[in-house]
Amino acid sequence: MAAIEQLSEAERADALDGLPEWDYDDARDAITRTIVFTDFAEAFGFMTQVALLAERADHHPEWSNVWNRVEILLTTHDAGGLSERDIELATAIDAILGG
Amino acid sequence: MAAIEQLSEAERADALDGLPEWDYDDARDAITRTIVFTDFAEAFGFMTQVALLAERADHHPEWSNVWNRVEILLTTHDAGGLSERDIELATAIDAILGG
Repeated sequence: MAAIEQLSEAERADALDGLPEWDYDDARDAITRTIVFTDFAEAFGFMTQVALLAERADHHPEWSNVWNRVEILLTTHDAGGLSERDIELATAIDAILGG
Repeated sequence: MAAIEQLSEAERADALDGLPEWDYDDARDAITRTIVFTDFAEAFGFMTQVALLAERADHHPEWSNVWNRVEILLTTHDAGGLSERDIELATAIDAILGG
């Protein structure tokens, strides 16, 4: 498998243009998104969908949940920061959310 | 439904004696436990079991997950701190973990 490369600044800027719901975390070279649902069942249902696609992609989020709220952070440890794999996972998460 | 009461110091000490895997978080009046699994699938499988029993009990954890690691914090917002509901949920989580 080819090494996973960290995105350059230009590549990152370009990718983030397509992900307006995500914030860039400079300290972690990561992207984050917080989603607020109606209740826990809806929040955890979403997490289950993300878990399945993350497992299939073998690329997993760092995330937390408090009742109806889910906070997601995506970065690629093997690349030392944001990579194409994070952009793909973020895009898939947006698709689940209908955004 | 009766109000949910915060545990007294004596009640808390007594409850924590039965929960040796949990740490007391003084700042939050909460209990925490971190569990490390083999991989993400096992970690998220555990989270799904906890989600179902939390939903049934209508009492939910604050928790985070990074790949094979799950951190759980239990407290009762309505009680302003640790209550019997947290002790019950912690006990049920320990049962899932076989501990």
